[in-house]
Amino acid sequence: MARVITYGTYDLFHVGHLRLLQRAKALAGEGGKLIVGISTDRFNWEEKHKRSAIPYEQRAEIVAALKCVDEVIPEDDWDMKRDIIEKKIDIFCMGSDWEGKFDSLKEVCKVVYFPRTEGISSTELKAEIKDGKGGAK
Amino acid sequence: MARVITYGTYDLFHVGHLRLLQRAKALAGEGGKLIVGISTDRFNWEEKHKRSAIPYEQRAEIVAALKCVDEVIPEDDWDMKRDIIEKKIDIFCMGSDWEGKFDSLKEVCKVVYFPRTEGISSTELKAEIKDGKGGAK
Repeated sequence: MARVITYGTYDLFHVGHLRLLQRAKALAGEGGKLIVGISTDRFNWEEKHKRSAIPYEQRAEIVAALKCVDEVIPEDDWDMKRDIIEKKIDIFCMGSDWEGKFDSLKEVCKVVYFPRTEGISSTELKAEIKDGKGGAK
Repeated sequence: MARVITYGTYDLFHVGHLRLLQRAKALAGEGGKLIVGISTDRFNWEEKHKRSAIPYEQRAEIVAALKCVDEVIPEDDWDMKRDIIEKKIDIFCMGSDWEGKFDSLKEVCKVVYFPRTEGISSTELKAEIKDGKGGAK
């Protein structure tokens, strides 16, 4: 039974997002909690120079509606350590595209990197819609 | 306490889908159930001549992961009446863009049309991504 946290933008919510969140919740164990930090539009734009297709409030509403998610918090700066200490987190986890990038958090909690779902990402999804390629038939 | 059913494609899952599903679940009342029929890729393509960006299995996985959803079934033909009788449904509900279209089902259950969330649809979302317009900042 643990308190687990993960962070992301969750733009154009897809099954890759969902599976990472479900694995994170499984790490929490029975009675454990999953808290999800969702990057605000300001943080995405000003710090990461990326614009999401869907505004923060809607991205947060969808993630909060999932069975595997217990709490959603806004991520508005790079100081994850503060959230982790305040929320008394045991395990921090991220997709393996971030492998090694958050190892400094090992001072305050356990750090886990998960493999991402092959071939599914918001970026690829947007590119496919733009091209008019792909899609289910 | 009722058994409620609704149907849809739920392509590029967005907050308009979510809010309709939450309202449908609220109709079911405490202890009630929400069953969601999701159109298969074959049904979309062969019957509706529409191609979804996301394949059926992934669309179904996301909808089934929502707190407000109790069961997901595939929709592979137009005979909703059969599903409704088999699943012992009390209330059938759809977005108001289908207003009046399913009134014949009133022979077998209550029929409710909900207002859609203004300005949010998978079709508009795809058009915005194609144009490179819109997005949150």
